[in-house]
Amino acid sequence: MKKGTTYKKVTVHFEPDSVNIIVERGASLLQAAIDAGVHITASCGGAGVCGTCKVLIEKGEVESSRSEKLSQEEWEQGMRQACQSRVLTDLTVNVPVESRLETAVVSREIEMVTGAAGPAEAIATGWRFKPPLNKCYVELPPPTSADNTSDLSRLLRGLKKKCTLNYAGVDLDVVRKLPRVLRRKKYRVTATTLVQAVKTKADKRKPTIINIEPGNTSQKHFSLAFDIGTTTICGQLLDLNRGKVIAEAMTYNRQIGYGADVITRIAYCQKPGGLKKLQQAVVATINQIIDELLAQSQTKAEDIGHMTIAGNTTMTHILLGINPEYIRLAPYTPAASFFPPVMARSLGINVVKHVHLFPFPSVASYVGGDIVSGVVAAGIHQRERLTLYMDIGTNGEIMLGNSDWMVTTACSAGPAFEGGGIKHGMIATTGAIEDFDISLPDLKPEVHTIGGAKPKGICGSGLLNIIARLLEAKVIGQNGKFNTDLATNRIRKGSDGYEYILSQARETQTGRDIVITEVDIDNLIRAKAAMYAGCQTLTKSVGIACADLEQVIIAGAFGSHIDIEKSITIGLLPDIPQDRFIFVGNGSLTGSRLVSFSTDLLDDARKVAMMMTNLELSESPDFMHHYVAALFLPHTNTDQFPNVSKRLAGLADSKTKGGLTV
Amino acid sequence: MKKGTTYKKVTVHFEPDSVNIIVERGASLLQAAIDAGVHITASCGGAGVCGTCKVLIEKGEVESSRSEKLSQEEWEQGMRQACQSRVLTDLTVNVPVESRLETAVVSREIEMVTGAAGPAEAIATGWRFKPPLNKCYVELPPPTSADNTSDLSRLLRGLKKKCTLNYAGVDLDVVRKLPRVLRRKKYRVTATTLVQAVKTKADKRKPTIINIEPGNTSQKHFSLAFDIGTTTICGQLLDLNRGKVIAEAMTYNRQIGYGADVITRIAYCQKPGGLKKLQQAVVATINQIIDELLAQSQTKAEDIGHMTIAGNTTMTHILLGINPEYIRLAPYTPAASFFPPVMARSLGINVVKHVHLFPFPSVASYVGGDIVSGVVAAGIHQRERLTLYMDIGTNGEIMLGNSDWMVTTACSAGPAFEGGGIKHGMIATTGAIEDFDISLPDLKPEVHTIGGAKPKGICGSGLLNIIARLLEAKVIGQNGKFNTDLATNRIRKGSDGYEYILSQARETQTGRDIVITEVDIDNLIRAKAAMYAGCQTLTKSVGIACADLEQVIIAGAFGSHIDIEKSITIGLLPDIPQDRFIFVGNGSLTGSRLVSFSTDLLDDARKVAMMMTNLELSESPDFMHHYVAALFLPHTNTDQFPNVSKRLAGLADSKTKGGLTV
Repeated sequence: MKKGTTYKKVTVHFEPDSVNIIVERGASLLQAAIDAGVHITASCGGAGVCGTCKVLIEKGEVESSRSEKLSQEEWEQGMRQACQSRVLTDLTVNVPVESRLETAVVSREIEMVTGAAGPAEAIATGWRFKPPLNKCYVELPPPTSADNTSDLSRLLRGLKKKCTLNYAGVDLDVVRKLPRVLRRKKYRVTATTLVQAVKTKADKRKPTIINIEPGNTSQKHFSLAFDIGTTTICGQLLDLNRGKVIAEAMTYNRQIGYGADVITRIAYCQKPGGLKKLQQAVVATINQIIDELLAQSQTKAEDIGHMTIAGNTTMTHILLGINPEYIRLAPYTPAASFFPPVMARSLGINVVKHVHLFPFPSVASYVGGDIVSGVVAAGIHQRERLTLYMDIGTNGEIMLGNSDWMVTTACSAGPAFEGGGIKHGMIATTGAIEDFDISLPDLKPEVHTIGGAKPKGICGSGLLNIIARLLEAKVIGQNGKFNTDLATNRIRKGSDGYEYILSQARETQTGRDIVITEVDIDNLIRAKAAMYAGCQTLTKSVGIACADLEQVIIAGAFGSHIDIEKSITIGLLPDIPQDRFIFVGNGSLTGSRLVSFSTDLLDDARKVAMMMTNLELSESPDFMHHYVAALFLPHTNTDQFPNVSKRLAGLADSKTKGGLTV
Repeated sequence: MKKGTTYKKVTVHFEPDSVNIIVERGASLLQAAIDAGVHITASCGGAGVCGTCKVLIEKGEVESSRSEKLSQEEWEQGMRQACQSRVLTDLTVNVPVESRLETAVVSREIEMVTGAAGPAEAIATGWRFKPPLNKCYVELPPPTSADNTSDLSRLLRGLKKKCTLNYAGVDLDVVRKLPRVLRRKKYRVTATTLVQAVKTKADKRKPTIINIEPGNTSQKHFSLAFDIGTTTICGQLLDLNRGKVIAEAMTYNRQIGYGADVITRIAYCQKPGGLKKLQQAVVATINQIIDELLAQSQTKAEDIGHMTIAGNTTMTHILLGINPEYIRLAPYTPAASFFPPVMARSLGINVVKHVHLFPFPSVASYVGGDIVSGVVAAGIHQRERLTLYMDIGTNGEIMLGNSDWMVTTACSAGPAFEGGGIKHGMIATTGAIEDFDISLPDLKPEVHTIGGAKPKGICGSGLLNIIARLLEAKVIGQNGKFNTDLATNRIRKGSDGYEYILSQARETQTGRDIVITEVDIDNLIRAKAAMYAGCQTLTKSVGIACADLEQVIIAGAFGSHIDIEKSITIGLLPDIPQDRFIFVGNGSLTGSRLVSFSTDLLDDARKVAMMMTNLELSESPDFMHHYVAALFLPHTNTDQFPNVSKRLAGLADSKTKGGLTV
């Protein structure tokens, strides 16, 4: 090192991931974690108000101040909020179990959501296998003095003959390398062509030659399909010759470090450099997945020629570097709902220069390309069957329709489905309580956790199952309040009012009791009420009843784990026969893959986005009315849940008979 | 300056331009001149073999070695070949009159070639004023909760209503800035749209929104039209609202420092970094012209939205960064004859990011976009009239045809028309002998120079006039040899054989006699024979005779200065009535301008390029036959030049009568 230079770099070591990163002295510890790819929960986006990013400083010094989110005891142990800490020296940082996003869940999800294309009754059919990206190998006659047309014309002539390619455009970079590539292997070349992503009434689809390689490379013909979720990003590597998924990977969106939900992220984009940081975070995640896909399949990056991406409107904006600021301000207008194809490398994605990225069109600020993609994948636009398509989550997205018409809406359910705002809530990862039973008459709980680990908290689907069982067992009433007359020490009064002890301190990972409180129950009731009221407003807006629904498709990671019967019991899903419900897993990823296989479906995606009419709920008095009516288990109007009501009544009888004291 | 740093930079001062440039010690002096924008002739591209780049080192030191191109006397005076010299110290360099390309000529040319659109009978008609670039000002209704479609959809809706714009595409950069631009002036914005440069049978022309500005900027609506010549580059700034040229400028192509003709330049491109240097040289020239156009018209660069460029095939390749290497190797295949539109700034051109550059399509390696542009401008494709279009120069380009068919060819005439390969030849600039008469019976010459200056050399058109007069006066015979029997001291034997003294040393700028030699005459005969044989091969190939030509259009800088009668006299142009000849000046620039005004003509350009059939002369036995037959003044076959033959015979009679001793 040169004399006199100030030593400004320090090393931060993260445990238990065992990851090092070198940062500038004074850097934010949360930023260091994001850059190192260490997943820390930071729901509020680093504002310091949520307290979810607590870490333990085991060695070294940070500059930090204590907020009310840290107890005096935690502070003295060395706990700090990562977002409120600046790195002063080399550090060893331990990310505690509560602050960690475990990648274990990813492997659990991936089987569920990326494997099969979906059940036969909810998958697009009748499309031709005809990828937008094509490779064509041609052997051209070398030029002679009698035939000395330009290299490009010679190529086009060959492609026209061999691959019936007409009126093709060409990228300048192809022209630049064409003369030498043609002559490298005696005028035997492979051309990669891409058809326009967008076909309008005004034009036929025109292909463009985007790459040219010497010799026959037509066997190396791959593309990427992605679903860009607010929480997780899933990618697949596709073999376009065989129409097969040859690798798949999934990880957390690194943007999580900047906030758990889209609203926090949009707010972060308004800070100086904020949009760029979030854009780089999602690109870094995509690159990580690409690396993994290539490693898994022993494929070379240069053989990937195309990318399709489906994401919600905010995720798509940020990825493309479009400031989403007006999405969160009334009247909630996105910059665009159709996006031009982009050169992927211009966004920082690690692919070769000629790779175009096709973003799915979206519908409105809160109904995005993920829904369009899912609806196309499920083939809803191909059938007359009246279908409700639901993606249940913090931002619930709902589509109602069939081949003739489609209406959509979005409702803000709050984070309860993902374990957010719940006293011991957590995302669906190892140690989360996901199922629950209660034995009568002593009301002793029996909990099941993900991975069978010691309980650490409650995930969204677990919360739903717990509440359904508590309701059936009359531990809570239809208003969500505990029946405090019950003879059990499981119900007690805590700091947030009455609560029920699910696991006692000695049985848990955290060493504290895991409880469910009346506030938690209330949060879930509000969440399910919002979803259900959204469905109801949508069905009413077109004059149909829930009973008319011929099919309900449930998409998304959360949806894949819920129990239909229990969801109906608490009033999240409509009270119709269970055989009308279908799970499709990650429909958005499926759609993203299918359009890589068929230009028919690429056209469908645009048509579907254009036929969708969005209903804005935020200012709808109808929605408020339905919402208030749904703040009950299952609903204030028992007519809407006849079977549940009957069953609850029956249970009450049988249980009374069985000896339960009510 | 830091201690110990080696002082490596030196300053070169060029006279008479009074320009300084700082270069690395050891740099090539020719390169320094090119970079400084000092025009030095360097015909051979810096190989050291042509001796045209002689400069006088007035102060300082260079490292250089003497070749046969410098006499001992010149060497002792301090003359050096710029291309063979490396800069060792600060220098003062005087570029002598012979080595200088004077910009004075430019102002002379510009009136000739860029002013009028051309004579009425040789200009495209019937096209609608409908530029490919459009600006549309719209006042949009602000979003409400009842109408919260995306910003882009709102804009498209407005454009559809106000400007009947359908199915428009959009650039990502427009989407990125759209939300803020819309809100800056209350949803009043001006959108710039561009229609696809290429319309094929398969699609209708689809516009793309390439820029968006707050408020009403529709009055600021400009584009650029360029002709990229091997020697000179001409540019015009166009007002697209009024269809007017508002500024024009012209200068030497800075590539001249790397070689006078396309062959030398193509060879230079094969050196490491050669293509890039030549590309940067042409871009620097274009930028210089843009600066001048903006200054002349007080226009801002940001208001320029489009560029069209016509150039020969090699110039177009180099500008676009396409290696032209196979253009000079048999069987002479260009990389492409159609070029995709390019983002001008990606080439280094100083315009704003959204400016697309439209390059004219070309036909073959030596029949370029300049010919296509000129033919479209002259409206040849619109009329049944059988027309011969000639661009006379080092590379002669010829088109024969009408609205039904077109054949083209190119013939290498050598540099004689531009004064190259001529003992005292020079390009058409101040001091060049451009006209000539001879008084009888003493054979005393009377010379006229460009700008009326003291004679410095002979330009191409001057050479042609001199030879025609010498022939008429029987000073030379039809074989181009001097009549040494004449009683005059003007004819003498020099180092290159017989020569005729045009100006004596005391009358010239160079202080030496200016002569025309038999070798010079032979060079011009070969040049005119090549052009004429090209025309003949072309006419014969389609079975017509020269007498059938209804119109002969002469384009290009050289063509603008020739005398029709004298050109027929020496056998350069066919012996048909003079009223069939039309000068159109820089037809290539006119075409480049017209397609900026009308998408009709933009379509025509592509159609014309596609309908042109090229005849390759290099290996044609017919051409060789015609060429040999044309190596006579005017021709070995007097039937082809009946009027000239009759006139020469008549002149001989009258002059004999007048007392001339033959």
